[in-house]
Amino acid sequence: MLIVKKFGGSSVANAERIKHVAETIVKSYREGNRVVVVLSAQGDTTDELIEKAAEINPHASKREMDMLLSTGEQQSVALMAMAIEALGYTVISLNAFQCKIYSTSTHGNARIKDISTERIINELERKNIVIITGFQGYNRRLDVTTLGRGGSDTSAVALAAKLGADLCEIYTDVDGVYTCDPRIVKNARKLDEITYDEMLELASLGAKVLHNRSVELAKKYNVNLVVRSSMHDTEGTVVKEETKVEKMLVNGVAVDNDVARISVIGVKDKPGVAFKLFSLMAQKKISVDLIIQSIGRNDTKDISFTVTRGEMEEAVKILDANKERIGFESISYNDKVAKVSAVGAGMATNPGVASTFFEALYDAGINVKMISTSEIKISVLVDENKANAAAEAIHDKFISEGIQAGNN
Amino acid sequence: MLIVKKFGGSSVANAERIKHVAETIVKSYREGNRVVVVLSAQGDTTDELIEKAAEINPHASKREMDMLLSTGEQQSVALMAMAIEALGYTVISLNAFQCKIYSTSTHGNARIKDISTERIINELERKNIVIITGFQGYNRRLDVTTLGRGGSDTSAVALAAKLGADLCEIYTDVDGVYTCDPRIVKNARKLDEITYDEMLELASLGAKVLHNRSVELAKKYNVNLVVRSSMHDTEGTVVKEETKVEKMLVNGVAVDNDVARISVIGVKDKPGVAFKLFSLMAQKKISVDLIIQSIGRNDTKDISFTVTRGEMEEAVKILDANKERIGFESISYNDKVAKVSAVGAGMATNPGVASTFFEALYDAGINVKMISTSEIKISVLVDENKANAAAEAIHDKFISEGIQAGNN
Repeated sequence: MLIVKKFGGSSVANAERIKHVAETIVKSYREGNRVVVVLSAQGDTTDELIEKAAEINPHASKREMDMLLSTGEQQSVALMAMAIEALGYTVISLNAFQCKIYSTSTHGNARIKDISTERIINELERKNIVIITGFQGYNRRLDVTTLGRGGSDTSAVALAAKLGADLCEIYTDVDGVYTCDPRIVKNARKLDEITYDEMLELASLGAKVLHNRSVELAKKYNVNLVVRSSMHDTEGTVVKEETKVEKMLVNGVAVDNDVARISVIGVKDKPGVAFKLFSLMAQKKISVDLIIQSIGRNDTKDISFTVTRGEMEEAVKILDANKERIGFESISYNDKVAKVSAVGAGMATNPGVASTFFEALYDAGINVKMISTSEIKISVLVDENKANAAAEAIHDKFISEGIQAGNN
Repeated sequence: MLIVKKFGGSSVANAERIKHVAETIVKSYREGNRVVVVLSAQGDTTDELIEKAAEINPHASKREMDMLLSTGEQQSVALMAMAIEALGYTVISLNAFQCKIYSTSTHGNARIKDISTERIINELERKNIVIITGFQGYNRRLDVTTLGRGGSDTSAVALAAKLGADLCEIYTDVDGVYTCDPRIVKNARKLDEITYDEMLELASLGAKVLHNRSVELAKKYNVNLVVRSSMHDTEGTVVKEETKVEKMLVNGVAVDNDVARISVIGVKDKPGVAFKLFSLMAQKKISVDLIIQSIGRNDTKDISFTVTRGEMEEAVKILDANKERIGFESISYNDKVAKVSAVGAGMATNPGVASTFFEALYDAGINVKMISTSEIKISVLVDENKANAAAEAIHDKFISEGIQAGNN
């Protein structure tokens, strides 16, 4: 088998962990596999480098930040190669230039455009274990780029797709994907399987296991993805197109605390108002998540939406500055809210899910502020201090009680 | 003017020093110069990385060591670019891949083969200050190489040669080349000019200002080289083909304490013995410096030579193991010796130099153990604890008393 294995920063944080991971890698190689490994920077390296840069220039260009930060992964791969050499196996480390991970030019948040795999294949044919820098690429000017948050996951999946790997294993500090964060819901349990779509909804809903872009890519190229523990040799969770097990109505519950609500009150009930409002947000690169529009008094309406907490202040400022242009009476905002979501591929074909969902919240005495639904998820906005109770109520109702598709 | 400036690790050791160097660079740029800067890794970065590697694998391959160590310079150049950005100037950092510093494949001690300067010239045309990683290159497999000790000096001179720079400034923690180490000879004074050949002899004799290879390269391509202080805005020392000032007989006195003497006693007086002996040393990559051969008793002779102290033990072991093959009676060795040398372009045409040199040592009551001469230098081996006195005596005689070529 050709296997791509990805290890995050905490898995390679010090010499001891690097040696432990080296043994995991060698074990797989000794079983007769061809092994490609993708690594992040060691532990806090990236944060330390960011701090170093801030001391010199708090407004450093992204181009130079990428030049700086990409050294972290290069150190990881070299050290890992040394650890594998020490175990007596042939190995080579490669950076983005060397294994030709070609990306867009958006420094700090580039996307992989292509990978020329000749060198990697050549090294595998020479019986080398190949260790590759995650998180980075280079653009057509040969400038170093980085792929943004969770970029190493994306590197691993892209390499697996391009190499036609049989398996892409994402090693993390948890042993798989859970039905909910075990720190929030104590009955949370590990899933054996989950679909790409469910994983996508969970990832974007604040379940920090896999980065969205990597799951999108895995779905697109049908990469056989596994999330598993870097510390224990347990089975992990398989992420795939269709799961074989009977579809659970809800496969995961996620809580996202990085949410703030903004309500624009007394907007004129004319065409184009929502467009004006959200194009202003888009211009400033402020991501808007949930949106609801309600009928207000007279010929006005209210528009509410959510943004991340860090962007609330700027969003409000922009709205205030454009009060005339948009035309509204007032703004209210609140960053003491959280989003609780339930995700399940089985939802799509089961009309009763919503009512069970709201029943659970009602039974727990939780007031819902906003609602948003998609084919396979329901999200609600609740008071921050009710978020965990809401998650527990939903998890208990759907997962612990084991409501399956078709039972409703 | 097109100027290449090189700053060593101590000049960029922390944020404060980086900012100071950034100002030095910008000052030169504001004077209308096109400026290319070559940097080493920050302060102790390289040593820290070596330590990190040793913890994981004390026998790591040189290929992976290069992959690891080259990150140090990449961090320096990115941080420096940020510091220059903060001052409001346009700047770009480039690593060896990006500015195509193509080298041999000898990891840990590669030599620059060629530099394709298109990118650098392009960036200069765009009015950028260009900051380049010293000490590194890449080979034809696109693997990262490092250039060995003093490699950043070599990078700077090679870039200056290839770019046809008007000037190559090597910034150090001293303010120029001295007639002797001021810690040894208190009358030592800074030279305004020195020839490439004199600099070469001084560099190889333990005056740690410029690395030999960089001076060879400067001589080969006639690069206008200046050694100056990174802390103070003083003139420095110009290194060039011919100095304009009246030739001093002796321009510099150097002391090298990293010397051990080995004497092979009672060697058969037959052809090929010296060859056998020194080819054994060469096979083990042990560098031999001074060599003398004396007539012994009967039909035997003694051969003495010097090696670095770190290699003495191994050299003796090799000799012992080959006692039969070489054919000798015994070995003696001593690592409590030092080499004291006087260098001066004026020596070549002045026959009286040697006698003045030995007169100085005789007056100071210093016993000479070995002698070696070249066109422009005289080296003697003395007891370690007499080395500084010897240097002072020679310095006083030739330099402080100002004996010039032709006066003798």
